[in-house]
Amino acid sequence: METVAAITLEELQLAARNHALPLEALRHPLTPVGLHYLLVHFDIPAVEAGSWRLELGGRVERPVSLTLEELRARPQRTLAVTLECAGNGRVLLEPRALSQPWLTEAVGTAEWTGTPLAPLLQEAGVDEEAVEVVFTGLDRGAQGGVVHPYERSLPLGEALREEVLLAWAVNGEPLPPQHGHPLRLVVPGWYGMTHVKWLRAITVVDAPFGGWQQAVGYRLRQSEDEDGEPVTRMLPRALMIPPGIPDFFSRSRLLEPGRCVLEGRAWSGFAPVERVEVSVDGGRWEEAELGAPLSDYAWRGWTYEWRADVGEHELRCRAADAAGNTQPDEPAWNLDGYCNNAPQRIRVTVADDLGTVVVA
Amino acid sequence: METVAAITLEELQLAARNHALPLEALRHPLTPVGLHYLLVHFDIPAVEAGSWRLELGGRVERPVSLTLEELRARPQRTLAVTLECAGNGRVLLEPRALSQPWLTEAVGTAEWTGTPLAPLLQEAGVDEEAVEVVFTGLDRGAQGGVVHPYERSLPLGEALREEVLLAWAVNGEPLPPQHGHPLRLVVPGWYGMTHVKWLRAITVVDAPFGGWQQAVGYRLRQSEDEDGEPVTRMLPRALMIPPGIPDFFSRSRLLEPGRCVLEGRAWSGFAPVERVEVSVDGGRWEEAELGAPLSDYAWRGWTYEWRADVGEHELRCRAADAAGNTQPDEPAWNLDGYCNNAPQRIRVTVADDLGTVVVA
Repeated sequence: METVAAITLEELQLAARNHALPLEALRHPLTPVGLHYLLVHFDIPAVEAGSWRLELGGRVERPVSLTLEELRARPQRTLAVTLECAGNGRVLLEPRALSQPWLTEAVGTAEWTGTPLAPLLQEAGVDEEAVEVVFTGLDRGAQGGVVHPYERSLPLGEALREEVLLAWAVNGEPLPPQHGHPLRLVVPGWYGMTHVKWLRAITVVDAPFGGWQQAVGYRLRQSEDEDGEPVTRMLPRALMIPPGIPDFFSRSRLLEPGRCVLEGRAWSGFAPVERVEVSVDGGRWEEAELGAPLSDYAWRGWTYEWRADVGEHELRCRAADAAGNTQPDEPAWNLDGYCNNAPQRIRVTVADDLGTVVVA
Repeated sequence: METVAAITLEELQLAARNHALPLEALRHPLTPVGLHYLLVHFDIPAVEAGSWRLELGGRVERPVSLTLEELRARPQRTLAVTLECAGNGRVLLEPRALSQPWLTEAVGTAEWTGTPLAPLLQEAGVDEEAVEVVFTGLDRGAQGGVVHPYERSLPLGEALREEVLLAWAVNGEPLPPQHGHPLRLVVPGWYGMTHVKWLRAITVVDAPFGGWQQAVGYRLRQSEDEDGEPVTRMLPRALMIPPGIPDFFSRSRLLEPGRCVLEGRAWSGFAPVERVEVSVDGGRWEEAELGAPLSDYAWRGWTYEWRADVGEHELRCRAADAAGNTQPDEPAWNLDGYCNNAPQRIRVTVADDLGTVVVA
């Protein structure tokens, strides 16, 4: 673990509300609710599912207003999807953006059940001038000095992909309040900001959407003056379950010597993960064994057998996908701290008798 | 919100893993899983419920080993219980202890279902010399330089109280991994550290238990040299749902002027909450209206009608219980940062047109 500049009270307030995946929870192929990472920009809104409606309109021929029952009566699909926050790793960038202070573990994988979006748009009749689809949540607040509802857009072609869902259930249960009850968008492969929660409106538009979360937030910029490129799909990343047992405060690891099977998960939003590698003490990268992915849009497990010798060690892991995306040794800095997929580092103290180890 | 000294990386690591109740979730009488506060000292252990057993032994005549099925076949009780971390408010103490950096919202209320502990102990036949009962979890790690399993004791008289449960379900569902699957202790009225998760053993002992979490941790000390008094039951505390809408980063609140019903919850582990008061801008404390408690061991709702005028405001709330316990204006400092029940403070900007407010 790198050292970082001291965290501010504002960052702590966000860290207290939101939470990452405790790394040992990587053992679950599907992350149990409550362990999946969670980022709520504003407040979780109070929604009465009985009176809630989804308004689909804008540049369509037949605007429609749908109840949850009407949505649930449509064709259903269940898909395992890995979601990662675009700001994952933000705190390890130097200098760092002041926002939700993620370390490396803002991720989770769940089975989302809902109805595909594309047929709904097709039935509504999308105008020829349409270029984007805007998704508006019921949550509202100020960011960057501007009061707005949380809303994000997708290019029309992305919105029409067959795997894009309007989801009302996660891991077989109705969405809990924090994950977007009663309905959220799921855009497999894209970073978490895309999957708009507490969805109230879908609006087809004929010009690029200029809302704050789209035009200012979630862009790769080197300075305030730049527009920057939009953040879209998840870069590859591998994470490992820290081996051994933790020290409560430092989270450093203690382990007995001998054979130790390291295990973790790896994902990419661009293409299947085709290689995971492990490096011990800065040495050569060696290939881990890959398990089957849960779906085309979810992480796959990996294992690597390590012979743990007495002493201090640093473990790293990294993934590469079939599209040629990799994890760079050093992160690519950007102003707002997005897409830092530099390899995870885990420090481990290996000792014969853990009871006698003095933890610094 | 008071200002505090900058948070360290180690504290951030804990804040990323663990999480508090987002304050708007106070609207739920029973906290949904995933919103309830969570503190895991070491790692969440992997437990196979099928082969798991609870060992009840020590100073008893008939030690017993029980499967989950055998426990579930015993008398069942479901009880709404408010759980709060003993370290809630730690970060607002000055100087502060370096540990999980809680602000004010490490709390939650759930319905726990399990079997009462007392009949199990009575059937096992507690020896006359017995003074305490030790509860041992499957989680293990280092704290204070000592490797140990998480374990805590209760005086025999407390362990025999009829409301103490061995719980396998929360809000009607099997315990999720993070809340102690397959079995946890629930000791209504006591701070969270008492409710040992991933329970594997219950051991009746004839001398006070000297484990780290009992003899060093969770004691009210002014210095390292003191033994201090043990932390036990929850002091009274009221929390309110922050009114209006948030600014993402500062979490300051924006509200339109006019009638605003403030609402929240209040609890005490000693006796029923009998009064909640609200103070606006440091003015007189005025009584809120109380709702019914969910049980003898759970929070009760409260409301207070506030006339919000344009300008900057600070809201505070506090509770008092029937045993005479109150919330002091200033917290009582102690070395490890326990039991800080000073009143919550919420800053609100009231303005006619929120769209034009410039958030600092």
